[in-house]
Amino acid sequence: MKQTGRLTRARKKSTQGLVALLTDFGDSDHYAATLKGVILSINPRARIIDISHNVSPQNIQQAGYLLWASYQYFPDGTVFVCVIDPGVGSERKIICVQTDRHAFIAPDNGLLDMVVFQENIRRSYEIVHPPRFSSRPISPTFHGRDIFAPLAGVLSLGKSMGQFGKLYDLKKPSSMFYDSEKGTTTARILHIDRFGNLITNIPELYYGHCTIEVGRTKISTRIRNYAEAPKNQSCIIVGSNGLIEIVLKEGSAAGMLGANMGTPITVSLGDQSPNF
Amino acid sequence: MKQTGRLTRARKKSTQGLVALLTDFGDSDHYAATLKGVILSINPRARIIDISHNVSPQNIQQAGYLLWASYQYFPDGTVFVCVIDPGVGSERKIICVQTDRHAFIAPDNGLLDMVVFQENIRRSYEIVHPPRFSSRPISPTFHGRDIFAPLAGVLSLGKSMGQFGKLYDLKKPSSMFYDSEKGTTTARILHIDRFGNLITNIPELYYGHCTIEVGRTKISTRIRNYAEAPKNQSCIIVGSNGLIEIVLKEGSAAGMLGANMGTPITVSLGDQSPNF
Amino acid sequence: MKQTGRLTRARKKSTQGLVALLTDFGDSDHYAATLKGVILSINPRARIIDISHNVSPQNIQQAGYLLWASYQYFPDGTVFVCVIDPGVGSERKIICVQTDRHAFIAPDNGLLDMVVFQENIRRSYEIVHPPRFSSRPISPTFHGRDIFAPLAGVLSLGKSMGQFGKLYDLKKPSSMFYDSEKGTTTARILHIDRFGNLITNIPELYYGHCTIEVGRTKISTRIRNYAEAPKNQSCIIVGSNGLIEIVLKEGSAAGMLGANMGTPITVSLGDQSPNF
Repeated sequence: MKQTGRLTRARKKSTQGLVALLTDFGDSDHYAATLKGVILSINPRARIIDISHNVSPQNIQQAGYLLWASYQYFPDGTVFVCVIDPGVGSERKIICVQTDRHAFIAPDNGLLDMVVFQENIRRSYEIVHPPRFSSRPISPTFHGRDIFAPLAGVLSLGKSMGQFGKLYDLKKPSSMFYDSEKGTTTARILHIDRFGNLITNIPELYYGHCTIEVGRTKISTRIRNYAEAPKNQSCIIVGSNGLIEIVLKEGSAAGMLGANMGTPITVSLGDQSPNF
Repeated sequence: MKQTGRLTRARKKSTQGLVALLTDFGDSDHYAATLKGVILSINPRARIIDISHNVSPQNIQQAGYLLWASYQYFPDGTVFVCVIDPGVGSERKIICVQTDRHAFIAPDNGLLDMVVFQENIRRSYEIVHPPRFSSRPISPTFHGRDIFAPLAGVLSLGKSMGQFGKLYDLKKPSSMFYDSEKGTTTARILHIDRFGNLITNIPELYYGHCTIEVGRTKISTRIRNYAEAPKNQSCIIVGSNGLIEIVLKEGSAAGMLGANMGTPITVSLGDQSPNF
Repeated sequence: MKQTGRLTRARKKSTQGLVALLTDFGDSDHYAATLKGVILSINPRARIIDISHNVSPQNIQQAGYLLWASYQYFPDGTVFVCVIDPGVGSERKIICVQTDRHAFIAPDNGLLDMVVFQENIRRSYEIVHPPRFSSRPISPTFHGRDIFAPLAGVLSLGKSMGQFGKLYDLKKPSSMFYDSEKGTTTARILHIDRFGNLITNIPELYYGHCTIEVGRTKISTRIRNYAEAPKNQSCIIVGSNGLIEIVLKEGSAAGMLGANMGTPITVSLGDQSPNF
């Protein structure tokens, strides 16, 4: 399609107050709504968007992927609140990270690794003096309501995160994606989506010359879109975030391959050099 | 109940910026949220309502029903974005339709048929110059993010759809609902809702004198509300959108009848004439 | 954690227009979206938050718990719309309740019991002259769209509920929670959440000296947070709303114990006196 000129992003000022939530609270309980109530009690003008509340319970890697795949499409100034937090109530830290465009609140459990790997981190803090909303003690099982949400509320008002924490030395991961040369990061499944597509951590530069083995099945058919896919055959495609996906036209690749998020995958490279 | 005077709808001006989303993206992935991020990046004042993201994967007929059942209750000026799109990345068209009160964006795959059948269509376009949000190429697997959402963002700002497309000759379907006289449209199940109610394409005018066969079960008990329904017996009721539904009090008619969306249904008419 | 001073809630004025929805409509149908369309057609500035639409079909007790667990975290002036309504279309009443901080609309089926038990009720009405949005007759199966939503819309505009109903003598329940002395209320499961935690109606004052039997399993291990829980063993914890929960670290207590919402539970008290 022909393209018209690119749209300019709205200025930061006008998007102030946007809060995006990512949790494993599910859609049946009141937990996510309670966070929203707290945020709106603090900042009545806050606008709250759900990334997902259906992260598999305590699946930090999947949450990290969903955040990474979506955050860059949000307006400048968005505050991301990520509560996948198996360590709630223990001594695990809660961190707050300011990048060039966004703010992130999450447990210090690796959830932010992909974002931190990709972004320029301006400041990061360990939260030690969280703002309080309720006069009751902080619940040891629901920091989302008692720490994350009040913090998101005040950040969405434009307040600085510095007053709630102390500077924290956040390590940038040395690698996140499969790399055949360095060999430090193995290929793996980051997420299986609703359609049964397997999203891998293999960058698109391998698209032209890799064979991927999932369980006992070798996959080497490459497609560019679903229309050109053969039926009943899992294929390799470049997904919408630049990572290689294993997909099945009009069906679930995960189902056909018997794959789940823990299924190991291996990459064989042909003799073509990567198309850097 | 006694009724007070009817409420006047708010004027169009004040509802400008409302975007309603209907997709098969599910609630577990980031896809719907990414659309919202793009829309809000373009129009920070946009207000986004989810119709549903749980349309059965690629079930165009079900999506068409859900849209039809809800759109008329939305404020004037609402932009409806419908992404159930098995043909994504192929040569299928994306269309944009302006009715007297609303705008609709959808693939040209029949999803809008029920709306087009019912509404006065002012203008319709094939999208050929979509507004661009990102500097990256359009993903062949995620037009929702790269075409539908940017277009929804600019339309929600009040911009005209004409600049993004060329006029398109949209055919009004000759019939959508069961009609015993014309015989052109057979009876079928449009949707099965959460409660297991079977929503058919049979208009309420047949309510008083029809027997409906679902699989091997004949249903002829008519009820006006759930309170008067016998237990353990599927019944015929006029649903809230004027279509006949098969329902089971405190249970799932679909479960009891072993019905799914593909189950054929047949209508037998008594000797009463329809109450036109 | 050290605590800074408590945040002040935003003034009522600025949160006017907030509507919170709790239904058993599920996430796959258009029902909840249709309510939103109606509310926004009446009050274009309304802001709508979903508590949950995944209450188990017609499970009034579960809905009552979810409302009770979340409402107090919402801003002053929030209008709560609760549509778990097995009696829709029958002679059951729709009531509207004004507390010191919030307004509630619900069928008169016990859904509001926990809120009414806890709050100071200023006024309550039976709705007899509901505001009308559509010119069509009220559907006997979808009062959510035709009565609850129009009423929520006008209340969110700041209108008084008195003009739509007649004063109603709402009984405050004499007890809602387990009480070993009065013996009027037995212990039971109010809700099972996404993680398989069993939320009981047993107040935290029994935490220090009770043993709870679920089915054939006695549970007496007490934990304060998940980190200190032994593996593979259901434990007693004080939940985030001050009620005792049965939980399993990194697993589902409901699954391990084979419990569902109807499973009876019994409480044995030790010789310690309650720590009032």
